[in-house]
Amino acid sequence: MKILFIGDVVGSLGRDALKDYLPKLKAKYMPDVTIVNGENAAGGKGLTQKIYHEISETGADVITMGNHTWDKKEIFEFIENAPNLIRPVNFPEGNPGKGYVIHKVGKRKIAIINAQGRTFLPPIDCPFKALDELVTIIKKETPFIFVDFHAEATSEKLAMGWYLDGRVSAVVGTHTHVQTADERILPEGTAYITDVGMTGPYDGILGMDKDIIIQRFLTNLPARFEVANGREQCNGVFINVDDHSGKAIAVKRIHISEEHPLFD
Amino acid sequence: MKILFIGDVVGSLGRDALKDYLPKLKAKYMPDVTIVNGENAAGGKGLTQKIYHEISETGADVITMGNHTWDKKEIFEFIENAPNLIRPVNFPEGNPGKGYVIHKVGKRKIAIINAQGRTFLPPIDCPFKALDELVTIIKKETPFIFVDFHAEATSEKLAMGWYLDGRVSAVVGTHTHVQTADERILPEGTAYITDVGMTGPYDGILGMDKDIIIQRFLTNLPARFEVANGREQCNGVFINVDDHSGKAIAVKRIHISEEHPLFD
Amino acid sequence: MKILFIGDVVGSLGRDALKDYLPKLKAKYMPDVTIVNGENAAGGKGLTQKIYHEISETGADVITMGNHTWDKKEIFEFIENAPNLIRPVNFPEGNPGKGYVIHKVGKRKIAIINAQGRTFLPPIDCPFKALDELVTIIKKETPFIFVDFHAEATSEKLAMGWYLDGRVSAVVGTHTHVQTADERILPEGTAYITDVGMTGPYDGILGMDKDIIIQRFLTNLPARFEVANGREQCNGVFINVDDHSGKAIAVKRIHISEEHPLFD
Amino acid sequence: MKILFIGDVVGSLGRDALKDYLPKLKAKYMPDVTIVNGENAAGGKGLTQKIYHEISETGADVITMGNHTWDKKEIFEFIENAPNLIRPVNFPEGNPGKGYVIHKVGKRKIAIINAQGRTFLPPIDCPFKALDELVTIIKKETPFIFVDFHAEATSEKLAMGWYLDGRVSAVVGTHTHVQTADERILPEGTAYITDVGMTGPYDGILGMDKDIIIQRFLTNLPARFEVANGREQCNGVFINVDDHSGKAIAVKRIHISEEHPLFD
Ligand SMILES: [Fe+2]
Ligand SMILES: [Fe+2]
Ligand SMILES: [Fe+2]
Ligand SMILES: [Fe+2]
Ligand SMILES: [Fe+2]
Ligand SMILES: [Fe+2]
Ligand SMILES: [Fe+2]
Ligand SMILES: [Fe+2]
Repeated sequence: MKILFIGDVVGSLGRDALKDYLPKLKAKYMPDVTIVNGENAAGGKGLTQKIYHEISETGADVITMGNHTWDKKEIFEFIENAPNLIRPVNFPEGNPGKGYVIHKVGKRKIAIINAQGRTFLPPIDCPFKALDELVTIIKKETPFIFVDFHAEATSEKLAMGWYLDGRVSAVVGTHTHVQTADERILPEGTAYITDVGMTGPYDGILGMDKDIIIQRFLTNLPARFEVANGREQCNGVFINVDDHSGKAIAVKRIHISEEHPLFD
Repeated sequence: MKILFIGDVVGSLGRDALKDYLPKLKAKYMPDVTIVNGENAAGGKGLTQKIYHEISETGADVITMGNHTWDKKEIFEFIENAPNLIRPVNFPEGNPGKGYVIHKVGKRKIAIINAQGRTFLPPIDCPFKALDELVTIIKKETPFIFVDFHAEATSEKLAMGWYLDGRVSAVVGTHTHVQTADERILPEGTAYITDVGMTGPYDGILGMDKDIIIQRFLTNLPARFEVANGREQCNGVFINVDDHSGKAIAVKRIHISEEHPLFD
Repeated sequence: MKILFIGDVVGSLGRDALKDYLPKLKAKYMPDVTIVNGENAAGGKGLTQKIYHEISETGADVITMGNHTWDKKEIFEFIENAPNLIRPVNFPEGNPGKGYVIHKVGKRKIAIINAQGRTFLPPIDCPFKALDELVTIIKKETPFIFVDFHAEATSEKLAMGWYLDGRVSAVVGTHTHVQTADERILPEGTAYITDVGMTGPYDGILGMDKDIIIQRFLTNLPARFEVANGREQCNGVFINVDDHSGKAIAVKRIHISEEHPLFD
Repeated sequence: MKILFIGDVVGSLGRDALKDYLPKLKAKYMPDVTIVNGENAAGGKGLTQKIYHEISETGADVITMGNHTWDKKEIFEFIENAPNLIRPVNFPEGNPGKGYVIHKVGKRKIAIINAQGRTFLPPIDCPFKALDELVTIIKKETPFIFVDFHAEATSEKLAMGWYLDGRVSAVVGTHTHVQTADERILPEGTAYITDVGMTGPYDGILGMDKDIIIQRFLTNLPARFEVANGREQCNGVFINVDDHSGKAIAVKRIHISEEHPLFD
């Protein structure tokens, strides 16, 4: 089972980068399932129905979210009817949408789960407990389980990786928008990376216009963050999972930018 | 001017890794100056005088610190007499020690500055303002300026990189203990990486025993964190700076572990 | 049903204040049940077995806790055998101890519940959900329910008061150590106060030596907080509950200090 | 020198309460200067020019702000021309407006200073250092100094009170919107209260509609907070300062609501 995951797509430049690179990446890696984090796809914050379809048509089988899930109000209207859209599973009772999806790949199935951390983020339900319970159930149905763990702190992400090691195929971090270089297969067979990084502007700060962010740090004055312009980047990860055991056998970081062209 | 920087050395395993790899790295890269972050060198938290000397003898010209600067009480007794030890320059008035050092390399000089971020960290003085003022002064003395920016949030670190772009030779992040894959030379000539990662246990969580940290996330019960055992890793960055302009011409990530041996 | 509650007892001066005033308060108010928050009773942080017995003998029927529950390690050894000691009910699974107790008053029963907020505090289980479920169950057994809600943010405490209005006899806040002047009976019959305040030093900062705390704010240097000396204060609340309905009919703040003597 | 201070006016109901009670309070206390915190006056967040004038006409000599200073964008256009409007003095360089004002009372002068804490609030400049420097300067001009310290944590507010004790006439806390019962004159003559409380809806949560806030705590779903309707309250403090020494000789809490009518 081959999995391609692309990190937080930011704004229209991010969607453009996705259109530029996802087809090429799919041609290169031939994934069985393609997953894209879309929490910043609409103007840097949230997701609209139009963009949900746009990303799906670009080639995503499943779209994951994070702390920006509800930023665009229209998501409340379409999330229940968006079969391939998931938001963190440990959002409290009363949140619309679902936290995981079982995706069919021929006769096989892969579960894609989205969860969110709590360190430096709002106090939602415990992601460790939520995943412990959910993985136990899903394991009966399929050995292929992919987790997009959307979290801020490196400690919480590493803890989740080690906690689920051997129980899921992959734990892949998102949210910090900066790719980490620590991809590895943990001893019990779970592919892990602290953060896959974002897809969108290359010369911004987390995809946002850098001058606005710098002014914010200097003055603490309110600012309307804007998605940056200019050059683009695409960040993701490719994971190859053993077809029998569901354990990862390869994990490869993907970073594409002008300075690091694809096939370089 | 060639600069070798090694990220947060954690505990005795971290010091062992430093002894194992620093000489080899120096032989390979021939740095003019070697800088090591030592905020976690003593049992995972802080620095003792003995370990300050130990790291110096292992080959560090300058030792930088961070939020764990004061964790070992004896540092208050020796920091004023430790010429090569610096702590974040934006610690408030009343903090012992100094925030930068001018290191001589033959007839040339390089300033090494340590600063600390404020996002998700205690409210100290503004690091942007502190560095703006300090860099303006140091620039008159030397074009070679290296900044270890110890911070949690990727946004704050990227903002500092872009803020100082063209004014310093390098902005190198520490504190999250996970190496990022975003090393680059910014348009105006500053070498940048969000985090160089840590040096110490490879199979822990930020260098700490993973089972203790996982239990902490599950229960929120207090725990005495212990430095992990087992395999080691060494993370750092090598930066080559133009001898006339002080601008970076190369930045190379360094990661060494059993799975990624040196010279691999 | 008459309830006397005394806020966070801090250190030996707090225990002295309790011995000075609790007997007098009991003589004055003739409570059916006396509850004391003891999370700071041992040297300002946590509770020992000796002090648990000391406070019980001073006149507390039930002792509640908060975020300092586990600060003294010996509590892990005696909490399971301390019938009148409760800690926040929404501490995650795996925490020793219990979150509520049913106390008998003649033929009647009163439930005393301890819960903890999450705003500006660690991410534990949801206190609203926990109390919603627990109150529903306890209601079948008794209409008398008292809640010590240990929380930082005024918004979270007020939200809990309004959330439980009409379902419990009282929601009483602790943790900020400063008594608020907003005691009232909410429209559906729940007595409420945002914080009852602490019992201990009058001339400190939250019971701690003020000069140490001020230095901490000025320098961010680590400091060993010490319980303040000098004059004492005792803060609490008296609540009278209708014997049939379980609804509050009176709530009275109690503050005693040199400047505000008892019976003043 | 008699000072009347009214806490955070919230929305139109807050302004109505101010119109209802401020004239009566002025008739009762005959203050030499009247100060009103206006950071929530416009729809619960921020201040408009129209409302600045409205509050001034209702009887405020000086209007203080807090963390909501910049919530209404139009304040950037009029703050420099609003002589009686101040925002926290420790906002970083680059913030428009001013942090204190010298108000004339006959031949005497009183300095009104606004400052903001940093615990659980954004990392701005150090309020202790800012006030230390400012008070030293102003002291040469007048012994009458009033400080509205806008902060979340009780520890930080108490620390400021003790830090400035004897150097200013009063340190009065705002921001938590719940009045505390700890008003006192500190040993060296500074009137102190941790929080004066808010002016506006009586049956909301910090002035906001309670059901919306409760839902927010239950689900963490985004919500558009609305100012609550219904009954009103007015909270403030009256301080009498010795005309020669500038030291406080009396401090009296003011709370008015249906349940606690004025002159009760
Ligand atoms: Fe994101
Ligand atoms: Fe995110
Ligand atoms: Fe570190
Ligand atoms: Fe650190
Ligand atoms: Fe307490
Ligand atoms: Fe507490
Ligand atoms: Fe306010
Ligand atoms: Fe505020």
